[in-house]
Amino acid sequence: MCELLAMSSLEPATLSISLEAFSERGGLRAPHKDGWGAAFYSGRDVRRLRDTGAASQSSGIRFLSEQKYRSRLVLAHVRQATKGAVSLENTQPFARELGGRMHVFAHNGDLIGIEDATAPDLGRFRPIGDTDSEHAFCLLLARLAALWDAPEPPALELRLEVVRRFAALLRPFGPANFLYSDSEYLFVHGHERTQESCGRIEPPGLFTLCRTCPTKKEGRTPKPIEGLTLGLTEAHQRVTLVASVPLTAERWEPVAAGEVLAIAGGRILSRTGAALPDPSTPQLVES
Amino acid sequence: MCELLAMSSLEPATLSISLEAFSERGGLRAPHKDGWGAAFYSGRDVRRLRDTGAASQSSGIRFLSEQKYRSRLVLAHVRQATKGAVSLENTQPFARELGGRMHVFAHNGDLIGIEDATAPDLGRFRPIGDTDSEHAFCLLLARLAALWDAPEPPALELRLEVVRRFAALLRPFGPANFLYSDSEYLFVHGHERTQESCGRIEPPGLFTLCRTCPTKKEGRTPKPIEGLTLGLTEAHQRVTLVASVPLTAERWEPVAAGEVLAIAGGRILSRTGAALPDPSTPQLVES
Repeated sequence: MCELLAMSSLEPATLSISLEAFSERGGLRAPHKDGWGAAFYSGRDVRRLRDTGAASQSSGIRFLSEQKYRSRLVLAHVRQATKGAVSLENTQPFARELGGRMHVFAHNGDLIGIEDATAPDLGRFRPIGDTDSEHAFCLLLARLAALWDAPEPPALELRLEVVRRFAALLRPFGPANFLYSDSEYLFVHGHERTQESCGRIEPPGLFTLCRTCPTKKEGRTPKPIEGLTLGLTEAHQRVTLVASVPLTAERWEPVAAGEVLAIAGGRILSRTGAALPDPSTPQLVES
Repeated sequence: MCELLAMSSLEPATLSISLEAFSERGGLRAPHKDGWGAAFYSGRDVRRLRDTGAASQSSGIRFLSEQKYRSRLVLAHVRQATKGAVSLENTQPFARELGGRMHVFAHNGDLIGIEDATAPDLGRFRPIGDTDSEHAFCLLLARLAALWDAPEPPALELRLEVVRRFAALLRPFGPANFLYSDSEYLFVHGHERTQESCGRIEPPGLFTLCRTCPTKKEGRTPKPIEGLTLGLTEAHQRVTLVASVPLTAERWEPVAAGEVLAIAGGRILSRTGAALPDPSTPQLVES
């Protein structure tokens, strides 16, 4: 099993402390020693650093901490290889251009048999490596291509509908927790994973933590957000973190099995209900 | 004007010293201060590091030097912005998946008016940024897509034919020196550039340097290759470097205007003649 981490924020923020806490699980406190990767959005493009060694020993993680890349949207992955060789090709997160922006995907779980069952459905996208996770990403892109080949970016509801149906497609193959972004929204699907407490595969597969800084008008020093180094505009900061397991002692909210979230600007914009045979249409919440 | 650097080698090699020499031209000895990027192939995938600051001041360049990534194929670019904002989206080299492998492209020159003239010809590829160089890369990928969508990788001759015609398409728009790789071959097109000696735009736009290490059978210590840190298998090493200007005092060979080279394993496999109205078919040389 692998571990996932994502951050969405209103103002550009760095993720150095959280990434360090997260990376300690890569070979040090947890057995995810077969590589790691992090993708920091910058506009429609993404900086992506990956390594095939353990995150806890990685000079790349130290480099990222020193760089303090400022971004509104970050996705990261620590790998324990269960399928596919330990190679750069198989190291997440994956990234592809579609519609003039980089799309990034990271998956936690095992989707047993998905390649054989869905081989003809990849459209124009070809996996570079040989993991079930990258195959799934190509499936998602093939389903999104019609939306993004149009002259204008598609509405959030249309994107959500594709992501929700894609998530429903994955779940019968095994644990299907994933993070996906098209540079504008972060989409999160929670499912199930091997629980450290009992060793069983069950929900939750992901947790979220939403934090807001008070504005300067409130006349207080902004409260620091544990696990995040915030930037110059921190007074108006709002952040949502997503992780496989709570990274701090704060109150992280579990994502229900089958839930799909759409997040932007540090806020959860949409939250579909848990998986149903015929899920209801997405409901937009506070915007 | 920007500067280009590429390395092809028989055995995996590091490029730390050359990259340092090259990066000194990024804002220190030459006015290319608007970003830099380097792509190190690993199998069909690529590690790519880019920065929007000057290479000579970049902690990323220091990081690369420390990492000593071992690769058989490296492409790098130092940017002086002439078109498009100083942003990550506009920072070369560019990379896209096609046919299950990463394709990487870097261009030096100004292709004035190419976007308007060829806008309908990008196929399914969309620029992420707004440079003439990325537009040109999308044009190339659109022309290569039919070859790479086939079940088997295309023959070198077919790839060369597309690259050669693409180069001929670019030249009327302005200086069109480029590096392109599909993870297997490095393709090089030399054209013309602003010459430091006279300030005129004229050939050559690129130089090559080929070096071979003696084998251990020859009973000598392998001769070091200036500008390259070689790896454990250096006894059988063979390297070809490509650069906008000679980086060392050795005898670099100019690439003629309109020449297209195909390079693999540190050796120039094919070299078409200089540009003609109807160029002859590529001639394969020593293999």
